[in-house]
Amino acid sequence: MHTDKPREACGIFGVCAPGADVARLAYYGLYALQHRGQESAGIAAADGRQIVLHREMGLVAEVFSEERLTELTGYLAIGHVRYSTTGASHPVNAQPLVFYCGEGMLGLAHNGNLSNGYSLRRELLSSGAVFQSTTDSEVLINLIARLNGEHNLPGAIRQCMAKAEGAYAVVLLTEDRIYAVRDPYGFRPLCVGRLTSGWVVASESCALDAVGAKFIRDVAPGEILEVSPEGLRTHSVVTVEHRAHCVFEYIYFARPDSTLDGFNVGRVRREMGRQLAREYCPAADIVVPVPDSGIAAARGFAEASGLRFEEGLMKNRYVGRTFIQPSQRLRDAGVRLKLNPVREAVAGKRVVLVDDSVVRGTTSCKIVRMLRDAGARKVYYCLSSPPIVRSCYYGIDTTNDKELIAAQKSVPEICQYMGADGLHYLSIEGLLRVFGEKAQDLCVACFTGNYPVPVKDTGVGKFGLGRPRALEVVG
Amino acid sequence: MHTDKPREACGIFGVCAPGADVARLAYYGLYALQHRGQESAGIAAADGRQIVLHREMGLVAEVFSEERLTELTGYLAIGHVRYSTTGASHPVNAQPLVFYCGEGMLGLAHNGNLSNGYSLRRELLSSGAVFQSTTDSEVLINLIARLNGEHNLPGAIRQCMAKAEGAYAVVLLTEDRIYAVRDPYGFRPLCVGRLTSGWVVASESCALDAVGAKFIRDVAPGEILEVSPEGLRTHSVVTVEHRAHCVFEYIYFARPDSTLDGFNVGRVRREMGRQLAREYCPAADIVVPVPDSGIAAARGFAEASGLRFEEGLMKNRYVGRTFIQPSQRLRDAGVRLKLNPVREAVAGKRVVLVDDSVVRGTTSCKIVRMLRDAGARKVYYCLSSPPIVRSCYYGIDTTNDKELIAAQKSVPEICQYMGADGLHYLSIEGLLRVFGEKAQDLCVACFTGNYPVPVKDTGVGKFGLGRPRALEVVG
Amino acid sequence: MHTDKPREACGIFGVCAPGADVARLAYYGLYALQHRGQESAGIAAADGRQIVLHREMGLVAEVFSEERLTELTGYLAIGHVRYSTTGASHPVNAQPLVFYCGEGMLGLAHNGNLSNGYSLRRELLSSGAVFQSTTDSEVLINLIARLNGEHNLPGAIRQCMAKAEGAYAVVLLTEDRIYAVRDPYGFRPLCVGRLTSGWVVASESCALDAVGAKFIRDVAPGEILEVSPEGLRTHSVVTVEHRAHCVFEYIYFARPDSTLDGFNVGRVRREMGRQLAREYCPAADIVVPVPDSGIAAARGFAEASGLRFEEGLMKNRYVGRTFIQPSQRLRDAGVRLKLNPVREAVAGKRVVLVDDSVVRGTTSCKIVRMLRDAGARKVYYCLSSPPIVRSCYYGIDTTNDKELIAAQKSVPEICQYMGADGLHYLSIEGLLRVFGEKAQDLCVACFTGNYPVPVKDTGVGKFGLGRPRALEVVG
Amino acid sequence: MHTDKPREACGIFGVCAPGADVARLAYYGLYALQHRGQESAGIAAADGRQIVLHREMGLVAEVFSEERLTELTGYLAIGHVRYSTTGASHPVNAQPLVFYCGEGMLGLAHNGNLSNGYSLRRELLSSGAVFQSTTDSEVLINLIARLNGEHNLPGAIRQCMAKAEGAYAVVLLTEDRIYAVRDPYGFRPLCVGRLTSGWVVASESCALDAVGAKFIRDVAPGEILEVSPEGLRTHSVVTVEHRAHCVFEYIYFARPDSTLDGFNVGRVRREMGRQLAREYCPAADIVVPVPDSGIAAARGFAEASGLRFEEGLMKNRYVGRTFIQPSQRLRDAGVRLKLNPVREAVAGKRVVLVDDSVVRGTTSCKIVRMLRDAGARKVYYCLSSPPIVRSCYYGIDTTNDKELIAAQKSVPEICQYMGADGLHYLSIEGLLRVFGEKAQDLCVACFTGNYPVPVKDTGVGKFGLGRPRALEVVG
Repeated sequence: MHTDKPREACGIFGVCAPGADVARLAYYGLYALQHRGQESAGIAAADGRQIVLHREMGLVAEVFSEERLTELTGYLAIGHVRYSTTGASHPVNAQPLVFYCGEGMLGLAHNGNLSNGYSLRRELLSSGAVFQSTTDSEVLINLIARLNGEHNLPGAIRQCMAKAEGAYAVVLLTEDRIYAVRDPYGFRPLCVGRLTSGWVVASESCALDAVGAKFIRDVAPGEILEVSPEGLRTHSVVTVEHRAHCVFEYIYFARPDSTLDGFNVGRVRREMGRQLAREYCPAADIVVPVPDSGIAAARGFAEASGLRFEEGLMKNRYVGRTFIQPSQRLRDAGVRLKLNPVREAVAGKRVVLVDDSVVRGTTSCKIVRMLRDAGARKVYYCLSSPPIVRSCYYGIDTTNDKELIAAQKSVPEICQYMGADGLHYLSIEGLLRVFGEKAQDLCVACFTGNYPVPVKDTGVGKFGLGRPRALEVVG
Repeated sequence: MHTDKPREACGIFGVCAPGADVARLAYYGLYALQHRGQESAGIAAADGRQIVLHREMGLVAEVFSEERLTELTGYLAIGHVRYSTTGASHPVNAQPLVFYCGEGMLGLAHNGNLSNGYSLRRELLSSGAVFQSTTDSEVLINLIARLNGEHNLPGAIRQCMAKAEGAYAVVLLTEDRIYAVRDPYGFRPLCVGRLTSGWVVASESCALDAVGAKFIRDVAPGEILEVSPEGLRTHSVVTVEHRAHCVFEYIYFARPDSTLDGFNVGRVRREMGRQLAREYCPAADIVVPVPDSGIAAARGFAEASGLRFEEGLMKNRYVGRTFIQPSQRLRDAGVRLKLNPVREAVAGKRVVLVDDSVVRGTTSCKIVRMLRDAGARKVYYCLSSPPIVRSCYYGIDTTNDKELIAAQKSVPEICQYMGADGLHYLSIEGLLRVFGEKAQDLCVACFTGNYPVPVKDTGVGKFGLGRPRALEVVG
Repeated sequence: MHTDKPREACGIFGVCAPGADVARLAYYGLYALQHRGQESAGIAAADGRQIVLHREMGLVAEVFSEERLTELTGYLAIGHVRYSTTGASHPVNAQPLVFYCGEGMLGLAHNGNLSNGYSLRRELLSSGAVFQSTTDSEVLINLIARLNGEHNLPGAIRQCMAKAEGAYAVVLLTEDRIYAVRDPYGFRPLCVGRLTSGWVVASESCALDAVGAKFIRDVAPGEILEVSPEGLRTHSVVTVEHRAHCVFEYIYFARPDSTLDGFNVGRVRREMGRQLAREYCPAADIVVPVPDSGIAAARGFAEASGLRFEEGLMKNRYVGRTFIQPSQRLRDAGVRLKLNPVREAVAGKRVVLVDDSVVRGTTSCKIVRMLRDAGARKVYYCLSSPPIVRSCYYGIDTTNDKELIAAQKSVPEICQYMGADGLHYLSIEGLLRVFGEKAQDLCVACFTGNYPVPVKDTGVGKFGLGRPRALEVVG
Repeated sequence: MHTDKPREACGIFGVCAPGADVARLAYYGLYALQHRGQESAGIAAADGRQIVLHREMGLVAEVFSEERLTELTGYLAIGHVRYSTTGASHPVNAQPLVFYCGEGMLGLAHNGNLSNGYSLRRELLSSGAVFQSTTDSEVLINLIARLNGEHNLPGAIRQCMAKAEGAYAVVLLTEDRIYAVRDPYGFRPLCVGRLTSGWVVASESCALDAVGAKFIRDVAPGEILEVSPEGLRTHSVVTVEHRAHCVFEYIYFARPDSTLDGFNVGRVRREMGRQLAREYCPAADIVVPVPDSGIAAARGFAEASGLRFEEGLMKNRYVGRTFIQPSQRLRDAGVRLKLNPVREAVAGKRVVLVDDSVVRGTTSCKIVRMLRDAGARKVYYCLSSPPIVRSCYYGIDTTNDKELIAAQKSVPEICQYMGADGLHYLSIEGLLRVFGEKAQDLCVACFTGNYPVPVKDTGVGKFGLGRPRALEVVG
């Protein structure tokens, strides 16, 4: 299902719970993180002696059967969901990765993107390393394996952190323990929870809820947290002058019921909507969200503006990955797949349409037209994020600068392109105000171009030494 | 996915559009009706000379591939989606049915349930008919085939309508035309729309929208409507003293963006919520819907009561049919599959929880407990429908009387069972008020026991002559 | 997998064995009959009260899983395998059929073809019957159901036999017993075996061996044999002046380890090869069979001629149904899928190539060329059957007369077409000699045109009343 | 499908053919090599700029669809089939492997087993390498990648050959050429053929035939053969004092229509049968092969002994990988899955039963009993190979010494265990005589224990550093 939204790299999960069915807990945890990645899913489990792995292309519910889960025995498990790219998918990129290395077996699930991944990869290749995938995750595990010769594992992880730049939240699995690691800027979220007898780490707190774990705290940026039957142990915390939590987690990625680094996502979105209404309030009759991601902000907008909230667009919940897309001819003939305007709600109305963000703007045009066809007199397009003008190098796929509509057009041009009667993006100041004094801990590089970590490798010729990458055809 | 809701029998669709890709239109139409049935899907297409069929267990997107659609050639198509039963499913019950009969080929897609289906079946069996399925639909097609000897097809359909009692909305496909038929009471919905060049009939208007058709009118109760390249032609309209549109279509089944027999579903639900607030308004802080079906009524409740609307329960959108259910042990340990309370929204609050209906009440208990665990101080349970106290014999699976909680317990007992601080069902009067003078055209038998059509066969030993039924094991 | 051979309609199996796992026995029985049909497979089981069914497109091993078999409970089971047509397959034609009829449930598995199937079908359609498939089997079950009103079941079967003309071997399943029925001419084989405690009927004795049953006797032509926990009971035997066992069962269809109506198939084939050598023995060095069906005859030819037997053609055993066929370009470039000549065996040799039969002759050309390319000096093509000059109307798909090479060309023309240095078909007299005095009990209509039962319906416009047939697209 | 035979590691294939559909050629080539491995299949293709890969668990025909093949574009391809282990299979072990290394991309398909694989792996692990699989193939590619820093690719391969001990036939794929490499002893076969415009390398000559290639020669033991659009180029040939072609390729693995290192496999087997008859000829009536692998030797035995050849055991060709095995109870009740004795052929006869080899002997017992049950008066068991008394460390899975019946029991004991009236193994001298003066070039270590290359690593704790191995659960 193609959307005009940024795409998250993935969601990660780890659990240590002697006596419990850890694979099943990982399954429910990943399922709660499914919105972070729909391309592939995997779980690796360890029982103190060995690691067992299953991963495959597909949704969590498709990848795992009762039989598969039963085979993943042990008291430790890590899991991973990965996002769906357009075009060819690469089974070889599915995670967790599990490797034999000098110390034994090592599994890894990774969320994020290194900003010096290419340089590190080149360095490793030059000294004889080989790679099966195009992921930074394989770079991390090679680094750790090499450093593990001289250092113990926490030491090797620490040395690896000294070399790796950019965004990473990682769960590492050995045969008898888990390490949860977060980059010093805290780009990607990671939190810890407690089970009746055991521990859970996850990208979002909603995954803790899903498995009945109590939220304890976020993994600190720069922290190496060991999780074992003996409990939690912090090995070290690498600190940098400031943090850089990805603001898009709040705007779009994370689930509204998650709380990340102190802020509940749903609350933040509603507040963004309120702020939006304070900045821009056209003469209108109703506020209509673009479901589902615009709902919370639309509600905030309605509250602050006093306009009536209407569900003027219905979303079909059954769109699956194998859905047959309508031909252009059928589209032109009015076939509508995903959204249907509610004529009774919008006809004759002046509509404030609230969405969270826009990348290319193609879908937005269609929605505006759809509302007009259903009789809306006016359509004012409001976005609860500032214009995305720069690419992200820390794990979000916003597409390249050339396809970013806001990098190519001015706001009036965009408004005209969308066919809207008005267009307003939440201001950066307005966005930051929502977070109060914690605003300084956010990464807003995609709106400003101020990258917290210098970007060395921009992805050109990234995977071999100047060679194009291998495509593994999907099974 | 098991829910504590009544289950709809199915959704039907028909299209006549020379020059268009009718199978693909049927695919999008059925997809828009997917909420009416998730067990099986099928499309039969005709090109003036023959009928081609594909049907299978599964969702529309699973059953059809590009290749399958391409094989369904012609200018006419009918389609069907069928609901998912708990326990064993019967591929042999998938529709459309296609039969060879004396006149040629005949396809049928049927929504509803005959109240004298067993008697008719017995009569046919006695005269040598054989049946492959346990559906009333096969009874209908046998009746029509037999009557078709003496009458032309519209005549045979009319004679069949004189014998068949109860609820049916049907699309019949011959090699060169479609007949859309609705029982004289209009239990189940059916409407007609116009394409640029062609015609569409569908259970709900949202399916017309999906294929870019303009709503024209509802098929009249008792009408036999012929749809062919020559246009629409009404053969006859059987009339009875009053109508009996199923009120549960408005309460739960239909999509909010559909308009059935003159009422927009979403509007009706919101008004039910307002009416509910007028009847019962406890001292509370927030209104929380049970997603998704309680949202519209909750919004109405919030508007009428002035209480703040909060999305206090998050629903995971990815639950699929193959999902591995948590064991009781994991449930007890707090594993939560489908709903997650938003602690930030409900903690310390007095909550009005709004749902549309309850059958057994088992899920309700869990939701109330979940909200309390998340810190809700009070939970007042409000239902936008009256208590369901009687079984439906017109195509809705409400389970039998013994499992209907409202047939077994008083309202205070149910309140106690659910662990709520208060419980209110919308009154029948309140419900009817929403529909104004049209209220007399509704069937509310499940609340009152006043069945519009006498119920002769209650489903005991229904399928053979006193014999149990065949189970076809699912593929 | 396309072959240039006649195609068998199907294989049938029945078992009555209280206390045993009858579904599993049926599974192994059908598996032993898999050579008789690879398109679909099905098993229906009964436990005295009801019938449970599973059938699907595919091989026995693909259609059934442990889970499916476990669901097929009871002490009675019937099974069916159906052959693979070229082009579209029809799931609706898969068997066993199971119907509800006046008496209760009725299952049927059928091998053969009625020569008046179309007339019977027309008669039934005129009186209001409807059909879901295009098989004669559905005609049989409708006839029996109608006659069952006035007669008990064995009586209804007998009346049905008085109406049905042509070839049929049938197992009928009620809720508490099985009837094995064979047409009065005995066209298609059917035999009975005894289990330690129970009974088995099957198309071929190899299926009795497969389930550990002892062969007792063939079901007599015209016999209605009841099989129940009380034992075997012959209801009646309809007799006609002579029998007409299909000779192609011996030539090609049946497994060499089966014994049908008194003759072991492998022995018969070897003897056909000996007879062939007596009729025609060119000056040659080696005898090479076309594997697998020509092996037994080639061995007989080698024995009678004194020539050396060589496996000069290797067959790849792994060709499956989903195999990707080489393009013409690759074929021209020499890509060989199924057969590979053994150069070391044939180079410089004069080869007698022994095959059992030829329909279109296209494959034969390729084999002759292949042998020449591998260095054979001479290739003499010998067939252990006479020329097939007429279509079969009793259940064998030999293609229509126009595509039968021997109906269109003389032997010298065929020889030239194949590029062989000599060609000999076994004479009809030679063929009959193999069977001694029992030769009169054979049907050899495809060689002579003397049809034992008059052919009324030749399949034109057979399925509706002059209408083309419905295609159910394969799942 | 479990058999009591040694198991081959795999089959490899490579093709360079500008302008041809190389993926499709690889598909047909692998299909011809399917007998060498049924667990997984894979093809990697290169177009001068990059490598594209598809591999999966399953048979060639299951793993590849038209769509997959179409995506594998280029003028170079390598392919691999891998054998089916009992128990868990490891998708991660499927080949070809494709890695990014310093020089670009590198693909590898490997047949064989290193006798110092564990030591090399340990060495690599110590210096920071990580492994995803447990195969020696990944050791080879790591070695080559490391050596490739100082040497060009042929040089790196040569250096790798200096380190790697044991058996390997390898095809290496770069973005623009293929290297075919064979170990200096020539344990595993590898040959080269010519297409109209292009080149093919394959484990067996039958794969050359399959794609219409003309056999040119075997790749020489120790040779590094470059295959590119410019033609063939031998980089170097490492020589050792003698060769050690695996004799089991002739006895069991290879296809009868293949010619390996100068000997046609079918001829060799027939001659082994003749030799067997010269060594041992009991008073018997008929010679019966165990199909399929005993057929050629049985034919030779019949020729040399003058006894009559009878196909006394029928093999069911449809046994697939998902077949449901009969329970012990059904086995005891006589259910027979794979082999059926032909009573007519063996009843009352004294039978010489000819098989190629026996590992555990369990199946042999059943076959002897089966023949006796079918009425055989005597059963003399003859094997066309000497007793297997030692494990193989060069790529054949003969199971460990403890399960080898001939390592645990004397010939009379085995005869008694099998319930045979006599037992004879072909003598080692008799076996060698078949090969004449080339007998010295054979490896017969499994019969004698004289390992041509010292065995350092016997597989204990082989994959990590003393740790057990990861199991990837099959998809």
